[in-house]
Amino acid sequence: MHTILKSEKKEVVIGIDKPFVIIGEKLNPTGIKKLGQALVERNMDYVKHLAKRQVDWGADVLDVNVGHPQIEEAEVIPLVVEAVQSVVDVPLCIDSNEPKILEAGLNAIKGGKPLVNSVNGEEKQLATVLPIVKARGAALIGLTIADEGIPPTAEGRLAAAAKIIERATKMGIPIEDIIMDPLVMTVGHDSKAATVTFKAIELIRNEFGVNISLGASNVSFGLPDRHSVNAAMLSIAMQTGATCSITDPIKLGSTIRATDLLLGKDPNSIRYLKYFRATEKLREAEAAAKQ
Amino acid sequence: MHTILKSEKKEVVIGIDKPFVIIGEKLNPTGIKKLGQALVERNMDYVKHLAKRQVDWGADVLDVNVGHPQIEEAEVIPLVVEAVQSVVDVPLCIDSNEPKILEAGLNAIKGGKPLVNSVNGEEKQLATVLPIVKARGAALIGLTIADEGIPPTAEGRLAAAAKIIERATKMGIPIEDIIMDPLVMTVGHDSKAATVTFKAIELIRNEFGVNISLGASNVSFGLPDRHSVNAAMLSIAMQTGATCSITDPIKLGSTIRATDLLLGKDPNSIRYLKYFRATEKLREAEAAAKQ
Repeated sequence: MHTILKSEKKEVVIGIDKPFVIIGEKLNPTGIKKLGQALVERNMDYVKHLAKRQVDWGADVLDVNVGHPQIEEAEVIPLVVEAVQSVVDVPLCIDSNEPKILEAGLNAIKGGKPLVNSVNGEEKQLATVLPIVKARGAALIGLTIADEGIPPTAEGRLAAAAKIIERATKMGIPIEDIIMDPLVMTVGHDSKAATVTFKAIELIRNEFGVNISLGASNVSFGLPDRHSVNAAMLSIAMQTGATCSITDPIKLGSTIRATDLLLGKDPNSIRYLKYFRATEKLREAEAAAKQ
Repeated sequence: MHTILKSEKKEVVIGIDKPFVIIGEKLNPTGIKKLGQALVERNMDYVKHLAKRQVDWGADVLDVNVGHPQIEEAEVIPLVVEAVQSVVDVPLCIDSNEPKILEAGLNAIKGGKPLVNSVNGEEKQLATVLPIVKARGAALIGLTIADEGIPPTAEGRLAAAAKIIERATKMGIPIEDIIMDPLVMTVGHDSKAATVTFKAIELIRNEFGVNISLGASNVSFGLPDRHSVNAAMLSIAMQTGATCSITDPIKLGSTIRATDLLLGKDPNSIRYLKYFRATEKLREAEAAAKQ
């Protein structure tokens, strides 16, 4: 099953037979103070920098999140979308579960077929977000959250996925436009956190064949050397059936391209070598710019 | 199924329900010129240093290989084994397929239950190496190589494993003392190299339940940024059922401890945190020593 995202000119295909798709996570003020400040000031220079840098480092799609206590998100998100589109041409993912913000972000996108992140399985969310996705002809990421919260078992997450898929397809959203994120809790708090997620990935894939996204960095929260945990998480999730991730292309691009290579998705190592050469130059240029 | 290795005082248990076992690979002059030179001079100081350093960095077992064109291996290996035993107390793995060298190495080991690396499925090898393993009561690593070479398919490697297991158990070697290495070729030359290995791991585990070892560094031969490929290879192999590896504890220890954590084999992150704290101190001490 292929999920096809589009910008004005570019098409990105997400599928188990395709190289893993990197959705750049850095256009999000949570954790990036400098971006928060720029958004408050409505200064788009730093937004453009982050957009360009992520695409340079291999992001196929960019996530756009403007969640910040000091800004009127529905007013700021069109400015960010326009700024991003002025420097890169990749499909965008509008990241909010507020209908007003989602619509404002989607309306600012020039054409193509964007992604919406996210809808969960709560009744209120389904009722408000799905119609917006449908109206825009967008694809969506569904989080396996039920009305009672995040199910602790893989079977519970499968049930939450089933509910979202049923409701979305009934509304006329094609199943190939639904990407499920089975969620991963922090393994420092619960040593079964990741194995539940791996099992949920398998169950959801076997049952529905849909694409699977995973935000892999949450898993290492509270631990030292988070990179080792995040990288291992991504490799195993990819082996288990994940096909895209909202993640940091600068930190995790090499792990992703290496794992694609090992999983037989990169004949003649072409993407791996291209990634290495491009990022080697970027690393040198960024180091030189700092001096 | 548990493979139990022993030094004089320590016991190491290899099993799918246990943390992954690291067999330190660095006592091997191939690729470490300084070690080759030390062995030629029969100077054991550097041997002791490498032994101690690997155990400090988390090696559970040490592989001992003295293959070098300028030395009489059967004379040198006892000196190396004695030197290693004088500084660390971990089970040893004697790494040779020459009967004379194997015996000389095994005879120098004080007590316990060592590992022999390796026997393959060629008739000549089976006939000469298995009796030595049996006589010493050692465990062994079997390589899935047939008389015709390394089978290109996972099924072929299963057949090679079956032959070794049949011959060894007929001779009275318990099946739990047999560890199979399904081998991995270089993914730069063949994009299916790793997927064949993952499938072989599954087939061999399902058929025989034996422990699986993997030398994960061969896979990245000829590629840039080999570490990213080796780390991803180990994480996926562990998820697929590998239970030990002859590898570099300094470079790959963090990936291994992170993957154990994700696979639910490290309740409360105890090993992960202990590894991080210990190696953080070692990293500082080694950096200070260099200045």
